[in-house]
Amino acid sequence: MRKIIVNLNYASYPIYIDFNLLNIKDIFYPLKKNDRVMLVTDTVLSPIWKNIVLGSLVDYGMIVDELIIPDGEKYKNFVSVELLISNLLNKCHDRHTTLIALGGGVIGDLTGFVASIYQRGIRFIQIPTTLLSQVDAAIGGKTGVNHVLGKNMIGSFWQPTSVIINLNFLNTLPKNQFISGLSEVVKYAIAFDYDFFVWLEKNINDILSLNMNTLLYCVTRCCELKKKIIVIDERENNCRMLLNLGHTYGHAIESYFEYSSFLHGESVSIGIVIALYTSEILGLLNIVDIKRIINLLEKIGLPTIIPKEISSRSFLKYMIRDKKNYFGQITLILPTSIGEVKVFNNVSKNIIMDAIQMCY
Amino acid sequence: MRKIIVNLNYASYPIYIDFNLLNIKDIFYPLKKNDRVMLVTDTVLSPIWKNIVLGSLVDYGMIVDELIIPDGEKYKNFVSVELLISNLLNKCHDRHTTLIALGGGVIGDLTGFVASIYQRGIRFIQIPTTLLSQVDAAIGGKTGVNHVLGKNMIGSFWQPTSVIINLNFLNTLPKNQFISGLSEVVKYAIAFDYDFFVWLEKNINDILSLNMNTLLYCVTRCCELKKKIIVIDERENNCRMLLNLGHTYGHAIESYFEYSSFLHGESVSIGIVIALYTSEILGLLNIVDIKRIINLLEKIGLPTIIPKEISSRSFLKYMIRDKKNYFGQITLILPTSIGEVKVFNNVSKNIIMDAIQMCY
Repeated sequence: MRKIIVNLNYASYPIYIDFNLLNIKDIFYPLKKNDRVMLVTDTVLSPIWKNIVLGSLVDYGMIVDELIIPDGEKYKNFVSVELLISNLLNKCHDRHTTLIALGGGVIGDLTGFVASIYQRGIRFIQIPTTLLSQVDAAIGGKTGVNHVLGKNMIGSFWQPTSVIINLNFLNTLPKNQFISGLSEVVKYAIAFDYDFFVWLEKNINDILSLNMNTLLYCVTRCCELKKKIIVIDERENNCRMLLNLGHTYGHAIESYFEYSSFLHGESVSIGIVIALYTSEILGLLNIVDIKRIINLLEKIGLPTIIPKEISSRSFLKYMIRDKKNYFGQITLILPTSIGEVKVFNNVSKNIIMDAIQMCY
Repeated sequence: MRKIIVNLNYASYPIYIDFNLLNIKDIFYPLKKNDRVMLVTDTVLSPIWKNIVLGSLVDYGMIVDELIIPDGEKYKNFVSVELLISNLLNKCHDRHTTLIALGGGVIGDLTGFVASIYQRGIRFIQIPTTLLSQVDAAIGGKTGVNHVLGKNMIGSFWQPTSVIINLNFLNTLPKNQFISGLSEVVKYAIAFDYDFFVWLEKNINDILSLNMNTLLYCVTRCCELKKKIIVIDERENNCRMLLNLGHTYGHAIESYFEYSSFLHGESVSIGIVIALYTSEILGLLNIVDIKRIINLLEKIGLPTIIPKEISSRSFLKYMIRDKKNYFGQITLILPTSIGEVKVFNNVSKNIIMDAIQMCY
């Protein structure tokens, strides 16, 4: 079992990564016998994995309630927040209870957010089931829900008590979701680690065929890279912003399609490509590196061109609402080489428009 | 001007107390020229004080939007949260904006809560206008809204950037609200400061006639007492619970009447009396001290008996949901003398019922 400790000033918590983690004694520590928990999952995962997790919790001696939320990004909203809170209150859960998020980013973000506001804050454990949440969403304490006017506009920083990354879940993950998750993996490599990028180029076939040892290394490396950033800048005042490579453009695509046509990682993949071309226009990155990155994304099966439905003007409208912005200026995270990114606050709208135009 | 600094591990902020504070240069520090702010107030305060505060902000060079919420505890709910968030998004406020809460506990708690969850947390300034919020609600970072199943069940700990306690507001505060606020003042004295209790007994007439120097001392002393507690235990893991003297019983009364028939402080006053008798049954407090406290509450004009509509059984039903509870046990804060309170986790339901019976 790989164990990464996320050390923050006021608290620290472990990330466990391996196969068959749910069988390990004390995996739910610091929970103890007779503690109350509320297991939150979705309608897709429930028939596949819920009873296994439930069994582990019951074996552990815990008193378990459960709530099943409909699957999908569109349920990551205030209605689901109220549903979960009403369930907790109706079942008289006090502030010593623990929420357990069994699912992808939607379940994790929603459950973490409720944990941060229920009775002014309770514990929660992340059990991410998608590649995307295992390498990204479940780590670092960003929680939140969407608003019709923008993604993740309502949320908090609230760290989990532990993150249990059980790789077995990936065996039942739909292929398109697995591929979507890989865009965040590639993002880490482009942003922080050239050697990891080279490793990905070499091992991408093993990853796509779910070779478990390759996956164990891949997921662990991503968690290590993310952990390094979080312990320096938990609240995204500076370097944590770098994790948003491809996300400002990507969020615009997701918002335009109202979180339905494209998976998060698919939008991020297109967003990364637009960021690459923005870098090129600014003279930050050469075309050889750009082709090399696009080649990897395509090999994975990720989209790399903008769907024709979105006009370049629509992009700007959605980008202007990004949380990183300051005084109406659009903040972009742009690669300066494979393995390094920087924050740019002052990119002109014309350059952004030109970069977008290059990606149809 | 009195200035109290609340020093927390990760941040510290000032509480300013005086008359005519809004005229003071730099009172809104660290806000600066051209910063955006959203002023939140209610329909009752708006015609009296909004333009004065707005004038100060505009003089200061800030770009001000405003939102007016209907007056009353019943608007401290998720609907108002969504209204404020939608307003912020529609007006493109980014995460560098600042909310300004001009109002009593409802406006302060609601605005602070939105500040804690809008784009994962933004700044807010408290400008409390009622005695209750000046001595209690605006200080210490407890934010939140009510749920139909319980008061303040949704919330967070989120500290303000500063608290501006302008005593002039008390001149236009309805008498019953002023009196309601005094129950929290008496609470501080009973819980922490015998000398302050004696001072209150001596000066209560000056307070009731709004003698401003007496009020300045009174409000400052309460803020000092609360600050001492908060810096030790911001998140109410131990000694901050002591501030809830009278509140477990009081919340039950408020919940029963759905926050309509009794003001918060009026419920707390009755709650304090029930706590006194609970102490007496447990042999913690003598009847002379109890009569002395009740005498002060009555002199102020606060209610000290339970309205007949609530049966003693209803009390228990609502008390069981209190946030301080652990494993279904009701946690009570009980006086052991005038100037000292302790936490009791194990008071039997029979004793609670007996104490309630003594207060009709």
